[in-house]
Amino acid sequence: MGSRIDEFEAYRERMNKRVLESGHLGIKRFFRLDGAAYEAGALDARTKELLGLVASTVLRCNDCIDYHLIQCVKAGYTDEEIHDALNVALIVGGSIVIPHLRRAYETLDLLRKSP
Amino acid sequence: MGSRIDEFEAYRERMNKRVLESGHLGIKRFFRLDGAAYEAGALDARTKELLGLVASTVLRCNDCIDYHLIQCVKAGYTDEEIHDALNVALIVGGSIVIPHLRRAYETLDLLRKSP
Amino acid sequence: MGSRIDEFEAYRERMNKRVLESGHLGIKRFFRLDGAAYEAGALDARTKELLGLVASTVLRCNDCIDYHLIQCVKAGYTDEEIHDALNVALIVGGSIVIPHLRRAYETLDLLRKSP
Amino acid sequence: MGSRIDEFEAYRERMNKRVLESGHLGIKRFFRLDGAAYEAGALDARTKELLGLVASTVLRCNDCIDYHLIQCVKAGYTDEEIHDALNVALIVGGSIVIPHLRRAYETLDLLRKSP
Amino acid sequence: MGSRIDEFEAYRERMNKRVLESGHLGIKRFFRLDGAAYEAGALDARTKELLGLVASTVLRCNDCIDYHLIQCVKAGYTDEEIHDALNVALIVGGSIVIPHLRRAYETLDLLRKSP
Amino acid sequence: MGSRIDEFEAYRERMNKRVLESGHLGIKRFFRLDGAAYEAGALDARTKELLGLVASTVLRCNDCIDYHLIQCVKAGYTDEEIHDALNVALIVGGSIVIPHLRRAYETLDLLRKSP
Repeated sequence: MGSRIDEFEAYRERMNKRVLESGHLGIKRFFRLDGAAYEAGALDARTKELLGLVASTVLRCNDCIDYHLIQCVKAGYTDEEIHDALNVALIVGGSIVIPHLRRAYETLDLLRKSP
Repeated sequence: MGSRIDEFEAYRERMNKRVLESGHLGIKRFFRLDGAAYEAGALDARTKELLGLVASTVLRCNDCIDYHLIQCVKAGYTDEEIHDALNVALIVGGSIVIPHLRRAYETLDLLRKSP
Repeated sequence: MGSRIDEFEAYRERMNKRVLESGHLGIKRFFRLDGAAYEAGALDARTKELLGLVASTVLRCNDCIDYHLIQCVKAGYTDEEIHDALNVALIVGGSIVIPHLRRAYETLDLLRKSP
Repeated sequence: MGSRIDEFEAYRERMNKRVLESGHLGIKRFFRLDGAAYEAGALDARTKELLGLVASTVLRCNDCIDYHLIQCVKAGYTDEEIHDALNVALIVGGSIVIPHLRRAYETLDLLRKSP
Repeated sequence: MGSRIDEFEAYRERMNKRVLESGHLGIKRFFRLDGAAYEAGALDARTKELLGLVASTVLRCNDCIDYHLIQCVKAGYTDEEIHDALNVALIVGGSIVIPHLRRAYETLDLLRKSP
Repeated sequence: MGSRIDEFEAYRERMNKRVLESGHLGIKRFFRLDGAAYEAGALDARTKELLGLVASTVLRCNDCIDYHLIQCVKAGYTDEEIHDALNVALIVGGSIVIPHLRRAYETLDLLRKSP
């Protein structure tokens, strides 16, 4: 996998651990609730990842976009489907989203190249 | 249908017509592109409405939320599915989303009551 | 109390009840976590209300501002203290905050007039 | 002038007075700085009103949009010029801007009808 | 030209090409519409670049700010004029804009130094 | 002190100087007003730093978060108090704040390690 993504995942894991070990109960519960929001419920988990991707893109958060792209690839979405979801985000959020679109395409290419 | 929604739809239609008749080519093309973004492509139209709803909710736009709720109901989503999508938006966007969540529930109730 | 605030509180209570009764566990837990975030912890509850007010103001949510103003008045803050907090929000968030500043002053005046 | 705009201007004037009379020096200075930002400098005042309009539109603040539309009409901009500026805001900010675009067109029509 | 800007422009060109070659018609059309929004219409192209700069600054997107600064320099704006536009963005958007203001000044200095 | 923070402070100081020396009176006055907003008034300076931290976190600006963390540490806040303030920001702003939470914890750890 591309080293930028490896670094992101290592940093994310290390700092999430740091945050959770700091012992704030509210933060710990928020993280659990965040994880649970993407588990299958009335909607299936696969659909929810796409919702997370589009929400992250219109709010313009690169780390969140990368995280949800990783999940979307794991969930088996094709590039065409992911591009189609990103197009919705682009229309809703406008040209200010374009730098994040470029980055999302780069991340997706890195994810597809990885063994 | 609840009168708040009737009024919104009438205002939306009247002013969209006004905007499009003003003759700005760029705006006209944007509106067409906006419509096309929710048509079936690599993703089906039904899924895209849900993406539009979540994007509108995290960006906290009541008119956009109402519009996509109308579309989601037309697309056959159950209340449970819509609540599950709104929960993703709530987790991503935080408590600042709650006033829009209250409003979305009210809109959904109005839509279900309509003949 | 001013009727605008009465109406807001009645609507908020009624729709929160509606949202919670819809039975989505994630949403229910988020509401509980939201309430808990303002309870005394390492910081006292009084300080946290002020944090909630400033966060709501820079994010420009009138309902959230009104809610936290009600709490700040209950917590015993003077007008001068609340204005000083709103000034921080104004500097951080810029002139786009001004319409919410006008509204916050109006809400505060309504709250002070109520018996 | 349309009564919605009259009401907005009366409310704006009354509450700005209220805010300024509350005696917070920082807020008073911010208001003065805000006024000064639109006076002629390296750029002329006319151009600056258009900048204020576009900034208000991409940040999606109806009161700010209305205020700058009033100023843009006073500065002598034609409808075509204002629509062209709003188109830039629409492209930058995306479809989430559309409800504010509808409202801006309505405000502009009200302003043109007034004696 | 400063290497940070060279790198940005090379990355932007390479990834825009990648995005456009992926074949999503909606995205392709959005890019064309985005380009067209800055061409002369009722407003001249020069004024529109300034609108793009201020919109990008209040929305706090460094890549967008850099892009529009490059265009503003090409359009012949002086530093004083650009600073005056950035001041409008600072007042509208508040101190949260300051990190982007520092960066914009740095970019502008790099652009002026280039042969 | 951790080198990332040293670099940030050096860059911040150098570029603030550059911005102020450019001679735009409005920008200069805004910087002065920004500084004054955190001085003791009706609220003490210590409380205002916490307001600045939470405002910066919900608006998701890393540089602003780092700056206010430095000030909060100088003002004598414990880690537990800062985590409790960040929890309010997390609840208000949602999971989109999490990347900034990770970064804030890292910055705080760097600040505590410095001699």
